[in-house]
This record gives sequence, structure tokens and C-alpha cells, in this order.
Amino acid sequence: MTDALVLGIDIGGTGTALGIIDRRGRILVQSTMPTTGHATVYGFIDALAKEAEMLMKQVGRERMAGVGIGAPNANFFTGEIMYAPNLPWDGVIPLARLVKDALRLKVVITNDANAAAIGEMTYGAAIGMKDFVVVTLGTGLGSGFVANGQLIYGHDGFAGELGHVIAVRDGRKCACGRNGCLETYVSATGLVRTAQLWLEDRETETSLRKYEDNIRASVIFKEAEAGDQFAIDIFEYTGKILGQALADVVAITSPQAIIFFGGVSKAGNLLLTPVRRHMEDNLLRIYKNKVELQISALPDADAAILGAGALAW
Amino acid sequence: MTDALVLGIDIGGTGTALGIIDRRGRILVQSTMPTTGHATVYGFIDALAKEAEMLMKQVGRERMAGVGIGAPNANFFTGEIMYAPNLPWDGVIPLARLVKDALRLKVVITNDANAAAIGEMTYGAAIGMKDFVVVTLGTGLGSGFVANGQLIYGHDGFAGELGHVIAVRDGRKCACGRNGCLETYVSATGLVRTAQLWLEDRETETSLRKYEDNIRASVIFKEAEAGDQFAIDIFEYTGKILGQALADVVAITSPQAIIFFGGVSKAGNLLLTPVRRHMEDNLLRIYKNKVELQISALPDADAAILGAGALAW
Repeated sequence: MTDALVLGIDIGGTGTALGIIDRRGRILVQSTMPTTGHATVYGFIDALAKEAEMLMKQVGRERMAGVGIGAPNANFFTGEIMYAPNLPWDGVIPLARLVKDALRLKVVITNDANAAAIGEMTYGAAIGMKDFVVVTLGTGLGSGFVANGQLIYGHDGFAGELGHVIAVRDGRKCACGRNGCLETYVSATGLVRTAQLWLEDRETETSLRKYEDNIRASVIFKEAEAGDQFAIDIFEYTGKILGQALADVVAITSPQAIIFFGGVSKAGNLLLTPVRRHMEDNLLRIYKNKVELQISALPDADAAILGAGALAW
Repeated sequence: MTDALVLGIDIGGTGTALGIIDRRGRILVQSTMPTTGHATVYGFIDALAKEAEMLMKQVGRERMAGVGIGAPNANFFTGEIMYAPNLPWDGVIPLARLVKDALRLKVVITNDANAAAIGEMTYGAAIGMKDFVVVTLGTGLGSGFVANGQLIYGHDGFAGELGHVIAVRDGRKCACGRNGCLETYVSATGLVRTAQLWLEDRETETSLRKYEDNIRASVIFKEAEAGDQFAIDIFEYTGKILGQALADVVAITSPQAIIFFGGVSKAGNLLLTPVRRHMEDNLLRIYKNKVELQISALPDADAAILGAGALAW
């Protein structure tokens, strides 16, 4: 069917976005709803189904070819969300089956970083690329690896946990229970931890002191943009740790490009310049000056929906 | 053609092995020749062609469907060997073209670790696996990554340089010019460096002292097998560094199995037991107790030829 459509759903910790997409990646209709506020996951599914039916009615329900969902800790193979610390439901949620039963449409799910990688490959900066990596920099650090034009799911659907490679042996405590994970340094949370630690340890004058306990990544970015050297140094430090980690990534999958996505990537060159320098400094000679570092070109609000929707084709 | 055959060639630093293989992985005829001893690479190609023609004549040259070659630093995409420190020829060697012109057969080349991965997938421990890693432990450390049933070559053909991820920041000097590369610790050379450093730094009584400057990996293995605690500790230390690095690998590609290949893997459980313990200690929860660690099941002398040959199908 040439005019077939898919429904893309991005489930986040606080909000869920829905959009109906055509083959060219145009979002025909879209809406958002809260993820939270339901007693159980069934209440959420019920509200999601109501929202989806309303959208599908507007475009013609008979045109719907399927549903793609991106969600934290979602497993492509099992169709389940497993122990997602940032979602309101505990344990293992058979998300694909619940949505399929509610909407009577084919449903495919994957984690949000993989959905972003598929979005970039289908509609974004990675069109035509067969080997690239998407790194999502938000509250945590996620990743989606594409090799030979296919997403690497791994044998169990859990590949791409770049946020949990060890960046600093015996380093910062991570929510996963281990120490030194990359995302404890490189993420919105990681930026804030660095700021807090440095403010305690150092005497340096910085405009960040006036925020006291309300330092957020966006504040560090704002002050760095305004020229605060302490804030700039935080990005330099974060970029060094990310650049070193990416040099190791390149030695494993040798991607054509690494594409950054999500809130922290909005820092642009403040982050990208040190990342590039430290990555290049740490690359094996055969990889030098070949790997493109890019910020996602997809419009921010749409990217997650587009990625999830592209999954359904 | 159902009775088609391929020629598998494994080019090593000192010797080159050739074998003619059928679809089931049976080696019908085989031979070896020195890699060294020629003034230029053309002398080597000439000798190789003579050897190959002799073998092909024995099975019927009209049955030959192609040639697969595994060699250090060989690039699948370009057909070239590039700056191989362990081969007698400098610079860039257009190996695939030279052999194709000499034998008038289709030629495919890849690096030796990738050839091993293809060998394992076609005839060895990885039959039926879609996601696994082969780690070759010889003079250096090589790797071949398979995801979705396909070898990861990367955009430029240089993926899988696991020997050059940084295991110890600012660690041992590597031949590649950087510091702390995994293969400076985990390889035959790495084992010997550890032994030499420890013999200088420590007063411990050990049977390794009697070898003075002639310590080789095989000697460390022999003495560890005989119960020498100093030699056992070298394997424990090496296994720790490898196990930590593999935990990071698992977080990226989530393989079903990691298969060890090559001389040092002959140490078996002396190495595998500490590798497994330290890998498991460092794995994110979702990966624990799922990744199989295996020693290659392919007969040693044949594996490289089989892998190279399988490449040609």
C-alpha cells in the first residue's frame, strides 16, 4: 500500500509523544500525553490507546500499517520493557503485546537510543550510512550502533549500553551498582556531579556558585556560553572522558560517523570541540581524521517519534 | 556447481599455509611455504602461485570457485595489506589484485582475526550463532566481531582492533605509538612483558628466573601448569585486564559468546578462569551469566585456512 502510515510512539519518563508518519517521514498528526499519573501500566495503555485511536481516526484508520515504540530499556526481541529505572512501572512489562491487543496493529519496540539511530538512518544525518553510532546525551547516556546497515541488537536485544562501559576504573558510583560508568561523567547528571564536586573541592571564582543546590546541565551550558571559565572547563573535562571512550568505540566498530542526540548535545561545539580533540589524540593511526562527529539534524521534538515510527516499516 | 572448491590461504609473519576446501569444510589437500626469503612481494606472489597451482592440479583446477586470504592488516574493502608490522613488506600491498592476476580466480581478503571469526561461524564453535566475538591471542591481540550474522568490517574495513582499546590509561608503551593498549598486556608479548617487569620488581622465588632473558609465553604456561605461583599470578593478572575489557565489549555488542583462538588460548582454564571471574564482576546486571567464553574448537593448524577459505564462498 503506497499511502500506508505508521504510528510512532516515544515513551519517556514524564511524557509520551505520538505521531502518525508517512513513508517520507512527514508527521501528519501528533500529540503528547503524560506517562505518569496512572495506578498501573494498564491505565497508561488505556489512555495511550484512546489517544492513538483519536489520531488514527484523523488520517483514516485503514491506512495504518503498524506501530513503532521507543522506550527506555525496551527489548526488541522480547517486546518487553525490563526494569526501567526511569519509568513508573516496576519489573517486566510486556509492552508490545499490551499495545497490540489494545490497537489490533503490528507493534515493534526498541529502546530509545536504538529508535534514535533508526530515525537518523531513515530521515536524518545518517541517510545512506551503513556504519555509524548514535549517542544520546540526556539524563543518562544511551547508544545505538549500526553496522552493515543494520542495528546491532546483540543476541539478547541488550546491545548498545555505552553509558555503562567503565570510563574511570574505580570511579564515580553509578545507579547500576558499579563504579566509573561513562554516564556518571558524560550526561546531564554527570555534568552536574562534576560541577558539584569541583565547587566543593576548588576555590575558583565562578558564576555557578550563585545557583547553590540548583545547578542543572542547562545552567552550566548557559554560564559556559557566557564565558565562565569554570563552566567551560566542565565541558572540557566531560569532552575528554567522552573522547577517550569514543576512541575505543572506533577501534571496535570503525563507524563513519558518531551522531549526538538529546539535551546535552545542544551544547554543540562547547562539547564537540573537546570530544573531537581527545578522540583524535587517542585514535589508532588508521582511524585518524576519518570519523565525523555530528549533532543530530532531526528537529528535536520529532526525532523520537520519527525513529519509533521508522522501526515499524 | 555442487562440487566447487575454494583455496584458503593464511599468510603469517613467518609461514604461509594453503589448503583446498570443499563446502563441508574438509581440507582436501594442503601445504605450507615460508612467507619470508623473497627480495620483494612479487617474489612471494610468484612462489605462492606455484604452490597454489600445484595443489589445484591435484583436485582439478576447473572445480576452483575462488580464493580467500587471511593476513595481518588486510582490508576487505580495498583488497590491500596496509602497513603490516609483522610482514616483510612495507607500505600498501595490493594483495587481492596481485593474487587474482597470478591465479585468474576471484580473490577475497580480510585480516586474520576476521578470517578466524568466519571460520568459527562456518565450521567451528559459532555455527548457528548470529552475535559473537573471536579474540585471537598470539603475538598481538586481534578480534573479529559478528553481529546479525555478519562480520563487522566498519565503514573502512578496519573494525575489530580490540587489541588497541586502552586497557590502562597511560600504561605500557605500544608498538602503535600509544600507551596502555590491551595487547601490551594480553598477548604472548604481553605475558612476557609482565614476567620481565615482575622479575625485576619483585624478590619472589620462581622457576621463571632460570630462563633469564629467554622467557616466552610457552614457558610461563609450562611453569604455571607445574604449579609455580608467580607464573599462575601472571595469568591471573592478564585475565583480570582481559576480563575488564571484555565486560566493556559486552556492553557494546552483547555477544552470545566470546571465542578465544591462537597460541595463548592454549593456556585454557589458566587464563579462562580469571577472565570469566573478572568479566562477570564487571558486567552490568542484564548481561551476567549469559556470555559463553570458549576456546576455539577448530583444529589449530586448519582453522586459519578454513576461515580464509570460508570467506571465498
